[in-house]
Amino acid sequence: MYKKINHIGVAVKDLDKAIELYRDKLGLEFKGTDVVEEQKVKVAFFKIGETNIELVSPISDDSPIAKYLEKNREGIHHIAYEVDNIEDALKTLKEKGVKLINEEPRKGAHNTLIAFVHPKSTNGVLTELCQVPEEH
Amino acid sequence: MYKKINHIGVAVKDLDKAIELYRDKLGLEFKGTDVVEEQKVKVAFFKIGETNIELVSPISDDSPIAKYLEKNREGIHHIAYEVDNIEDALKTLKEKGVKLINEEPRKGAHNTLIAFVHPKSTNGVLTELCQVPEEH
Repeated sequence: MYKKINHIGVAVKDLDKAIELYRDKLGLEFKGTDVVEEQKVKVAFFKIGETNIELVSPISDDSPIAKYLEKNREGIHHIAYEVDNIEDALKTLKEKGVKLINEEPRKGAHNTLIAFVHPKSTNGVLTELCQVPEEH
Repeated sequence: MYKKINHIGVAVKDLDKAIELYRDKLGLEFKGTDVVEEQKVKVAFFKIGETNIELVSPISDDSPIAKYLEKNREGIHHIAYEVDNIEDALKTLKEKGVKLINEEPRKGAHNTLIAFVHPKSTNGVLTELCQVPEEH
């Protein structure tokens, strides 16, 4: 059911400063940025092996990430498991009694379909499932 | 310098319950457990793509993970970037002004060499570098 870790999401306040840190100091491979209107965030992508580090910063005070950063320090926000078919994956997890935040997929960055599993079912780890479009 | 994400470390209190959750509910591929005496932890490994989820639980009250769990909730504790040569990587990061917790490598699970970067240099993400032995 799981193909790989698609990305690790890191919540940051100042995206430009965080990009400088990850690109110029740590030396990770910077792949660009994207705005996800539905989540009101701007995301910077860094490729490492088959996965990405995604630095996520709010572009509006009512973004879920803005609310997260009011209550929590900067740091790892979620990890995303890539699945072949997100509808099947959600069905399977639901049948096994896994608590879901989203029972139906939503739109993520780069035309992915995403859904979040509740951290109660994953020892506190906010876990995203994502399905990448075929032509991606 | 970076090959891939070697693993994502998740701090958990009850390893057996966490294994049940990740193996039987989420359905991740369980690869076994290992005790790391130097860190006083027991670790459960789950393979996903080229990386692993590592559930880490303390086996002693003076384990760094026990202290972490006194102050923090269960959840993602660190991510580990695999490098070819950890001594070279530490030298490069130090030259660029990245703050390090360990300036010299230490022993990790499965005969790896590991060193931690300070979260101040990574927007709050506790970041491990690790070098895997050639025959691994």
